[in-house]
Amino acid sequence: MPDLINNHRSIRRYSSEPISDALLQEILHASTRASTTGNMQVYSIIVTTDPSQKEKLWEVHFRQNMVKDAPMVLTFCADFNRFNTWCRLRKADPGYDNFLSFMTGAIDALLAAQNCALAAEEYKLGICYLGTTLYNAEKIIEILDLPHGVIPVTTLVMGYPDEQPGLTDRLPVEAVVHHEKYRNYSTADIDRLYSEKESSALTAKLLEENKLETLAQIFTEKRYTRKDNVAFSKKLLEVLEKQGFMKNK
Amino acid sequence: MPDLINNHRSIRRYSSEPISDALLQEILHASTRASTTGNMQVYSIIVTTDPSQKEKLWEVHFRQNMVKDAPMVLTFCADFNRFNTWCRLRKADPGYDNFLSFMTGAIDALLAAQNCALAAEEYKLGICYLGTTLYNAEKIIEILDLPHGVIPVTTLVMGYPDEQPGLTDRLPVEAVVHHEKYRNYSTADIDRLYSEKESSALTAKLLEENKLETLAQIFTEKRYTRKDNVAFSKKLLEVLEKQGFMKNK
Repeated sequence: MPDLINNHRSIRRYSSEPISDALLQEILHASTRASTTGNMQVYSIIVTTDPSQKEKLWEVHFRQNMVKDAPMVLTFCADFNRFNTWCRLRKADPGYDNFLSFMTGAIDALLAAQNCALAAEEYKLGICYLGTTLYNAEKIIEILDLPHGVIPVTTLVMGYPDEQPGLTDRLPVEAVVHHEKYRNYSTADIDRLYSEKESSALTAKLLEENKLETLAQIFTEKRYTRKDNVAFSKKLLEVLEKQGFMKNK
Repeated sequence: MPDLINNHRSIRRYSSEPISDALLQEILHASTRASTTGNMQVYSIIVTTDPSQKEKLWEVHFRQNMVKDAPMVLTFCADFNRFNTWCRLRKADPGYDNFLSFMTGAIDALLAAQNCALAAEEYKLGICYLGTTLYNAEKIIEILDLPHGVIPVTTLVMGYPDEQPGLTDRLPVEAVVHHEKYRNYSTADIDRLYSEKESSALTAKLLEENKLETLAQIFTEKRYTRKDNVAFSKKLLEVLEKQGFMKNK
């Protein structure tokens, strides 16, 4: 299994071969075996295979073609709607319209998503996470008809791979691990931990293409800019309010 | 691997047998192979084995004894501190002091945590997630010396199991899965989907112990009350502000 985990690649090109219902059921079952806060299972998974629905999702996921090309798109949502409905039908007053509850649902959704990803890979499917889910949550809510109490948190595209990419580089394990207490990073630490990434052929290519001096600038000036982050943060907080997760007083 | 995933049990009693350094390295390596937004790896893992540090964490995790008894406690944090430090040393202006960036880091941390959990189980270790992490984030920040830009999101206790619990019940898979669009739940749906859980021996025992009429009331009146959720939400939003993730304008 570490072999399976260690060999994960994000797949962005898919064959048109569909995923059988039986296989999908296996994978969804494995998703539901993830840990969940207090066994509340406060998440839902929306399965999209319909081409017109996929096209709408493609639009809001920044037109990444894998959303249209992969046979299946799975949207993982924090979901207190089902749990709240159950409570109300059982003479119980649910107090889950607050920020902590959103985070509880998001954690449930993300653990289920990672189980889903690994189960899919075990069955030779490929997956890719879409970070764009939180950027355009309000449009996804509309496309998927998500009610009050439900917010999409992440998305997996899934299908049989039509490419065999190499492993992505990672920082050395020591870069992300601290023992007993957080030890902050000196300039020498940063230089050492990022040196392999910064000196790679991929980085050289990106710097050339983007006409920038450092790899960090590609993140701050091109890929994840302050302006975008602030705009998406504002929209996301509005979504939390609108979907009923900001009664914090 | 679905076998491994499908056999997950949360372990709450541990033997005193320590986890070897070599095994810990394998597990941490597997954690770092999880998908991460834009390959930024904006998370950190704090490994606690020191008994006095474990005792402090036990205190803030509502004195759950597994925190003291398990040989290792792993705290998974959203971490933009390292990335921001790198940016500043590379003439790049990081715009990651906002809510979206906190969520990006939290997603990274949670996917790494689930890889960690499964890799540990592959090696015959047991794990249990601690949902209390977000409740007392500000105290964990103090205990682990987490700097600005770092927030604990979830915690795993880890060690060799000293119990063999049965599988936990789950709702039927159809309860959490929707096709193409979210279909809301009728009273009949809720009755059907929750019937197995509600009629179990465990539920009967809990109702007896808590002197309540419905299982839902055990959640709303005992385990996850509105009062607690609101108080923890307020504290958590203050932590986001204090750690530098609420510049959303």
